[in-house]
Amino acid sequence: MIFLFTGDGKGKTTCAIGQAIRALGQGKKVLILQFIKSKKFKSGEEKIISKLGKNIKLIKGGLGFVGILGDKLPLSEHKKAAKETLEMAKKAISERKFDLILLDEINVAISLKLIKIKEVLKLLKKVPKEKDIILTGRDAPKELIEISDLVTEFKEIKHYFKKGILAQKGREF
Amino acid sequence: MIFLFTGDGKGKTTCAIGQAIRALGQGKKVLILQFIKSKKFKSGEEKIISKLGKNIKLIKGGLGFVGILGDKLPLSEHKKAAKETLEMAKKAISERKFDLILLDEINVAISLKLIKIKEVLKLLKKVPKEKDIILTGRDAPKELIEISDLVTEFKEIKHYFKKGILAQKGREF
Repeated sequence: MIFLFTGDGKGKTTCAIGQAIRALGQGKKVLILQFIKSKKFKSGEEKIISKLGKNIKLIKGGLGFVGILGDKLPLSEHKKAAKETLEMAKKAISERKFDLILLDEINVAISLKLIKIKEVLKLLKKVPKEKDIILTGRDAPKELIEISDLVTEFKEIKHYFKKGILAQKGREF
Repeated sequence: MIFLFTGDGKGKTTCAIGQAIRALGQGKKVLILQFIKSKKFKSGEEKIISKLGKNIKLIKGGLGFVGILGDKLPLSEHKKAAKETLEMAKKAISERKFDLILLDEINVAISLKLIKIKEVLKLLKKVPKEKDIILTGRDAPKELIEISDLVTEFKEIKHYFKKGILAQKGREF
């Protein structure tokens, strides 16, 4: 089953994390692969997940924001990191060891052209029916919406960012 | 800060659970109060949260679905349970012990007239600025949208329920 969480509203990654925790609690094996997000700082969810045993694994494959908020890395470096993360996803899907694989911010990696939609579609077609995949990130391409079994659009109705309130520990990471 | 997750799409409760896990990971104290959801069966998130120590607490105050899916309880019983859950919320907010309080499905408890919107608004006005509250559930009344600092609408674009696939352990609970 393929789940897709997209849209401009807050909650896509946290929703996927909640889903991962739920699955883990029911005895499932979970892998979380994060595109974009980097190892530079630890998120709250990462700190908890690292204590939850061997049935849940979180890997941050990204190098941080791309082209914004002070990012000075060449795009080629971001591309390399995203491709490596996609390779990990391929391997994990073919091994069939995990019941749920979360590909966090993969939609963003596609829209920034770090990875090719064609490759992602090829990969998703190989997912066995009894396994679950969650795709997150704003601006999901229509091909991913078509291939998914469940799509929720997270619509921003109101956000305190617009009032100038900044991202905070425990809220945004 | 008041967060409101509403709409007909999947992910509102899991999103709030993910947010709770994130906050916990960053050293916050978290209380989860579930309206509607009952003690009858254990959700995946509940199993994990019960292992995460004293800084996170989950209380299921509900008696299950109201008036649907075989529910035969008189409405008065559901009302009593919801009122008691709201009392717990009041106490927790006034004690200021928790940094994040999640009031799961409170919107549904209001729209089913188990509790009064007036009482909920009165309560939310007492929340100190440095504390966070998350409200979840479809059909949020406009008064709650107005009072909230962040509102995400979870819009169902596609759902496998519509193909006749039933709720599953690890996916829906």
